[in-house]
Amino acid sequence: MELTVTPIGFVNNPSRNVPRHWSVSEDEGFLEIDERYREGIKDIQAGQRIVVIFHFHKSPPFDSSHLVQTPPHRQGKRLGVFSICSPRRPNPIGLSVFEVLGVEGTRIRVKGLDTYDGTPILDIKPHVVKEA
Amino acid sequence: MELTVTPIGFVNNPSRNVPRHWSVSEDEGFLEIDERYREGIKDIQAGQRIVVIFHFHKSPPFDSSHLVQTPPHRQGKRLGVFSICSPRRPNPIGLSVFEVLGVEGTRIRVKGLDTYDGTPILDIKPHVVKEA
Repeated sequence: MELTVTPIGFVNNPSRNVPRHWSVSEDEGFLEIDERYREGIKDIQAGQRIVVIFHFHKSPPFDSSHLVQTPPHRQGKRLGVFSICSPRRPNPIGLSVFEVLGVEGTRIRVKGLDTYDGTPILDIKPHVVKEA
Repeated sequence: MELTVTPIGFVNNPSRNVPRHWSVSEDEGFLEIDERYREGIKDIQAGQRIVVIFHFHKSPPFDSSHLVQTPPHRQGKRLGVFSICSPRRPNPIGLSVFEVLGVEGTRIRVKGLDTYDGTPILDIKPHVVKEA
């Protein structure tokens, strides 16, 4: 039941000081999408929020000692890995919500970056909100 | 730059009539998490919303004819694949937001199912909301 995925593009983040989470980031940069997917981004527009699924490509391997972790901003609280956003997880898949500032060809300018420069992008989805 | 992922568990969905999207689903079922990840779900509690990343394991292969698609509920509108939730996408990764009804050992009872029975689960993340 394995699945192998390949990047549809890469994050271009000029900053070396990456915020810990998109929800607290005002950083701007680009998603550089592969030319062959150009048509697939034709409806992405400035002002939208998009969900970006990516590969935590710099994370060291996961082992059972990481099932419970203490996030740096949670005052020593030990939490199960599926309740936190740590990059060290069984499958190193990340999720961020970015605000689209504009689209120039295959470059999507975004705000809210919390991903390293060169991060492989696996998917982009519309940001769907359901009221509680 | 390939990434190979393996399921952390599977969806147990008793229904054969699966709604098209979690945002319009009231269906209930279970996420059956592998025993080795038991500790990782210890902080998932009834009443929370969780983000579930999964493998669209029944999707036929993607090719360039699917870069633009017409979702069944969008009145013939042709949209880029990265602006819709179609299961036919370059990397067959899905994302749903479920409401947790309870946790019994390694079984998470959820509401809002839009995934077929047997869907491989790749990750679970907390549902983080940022006000506009």
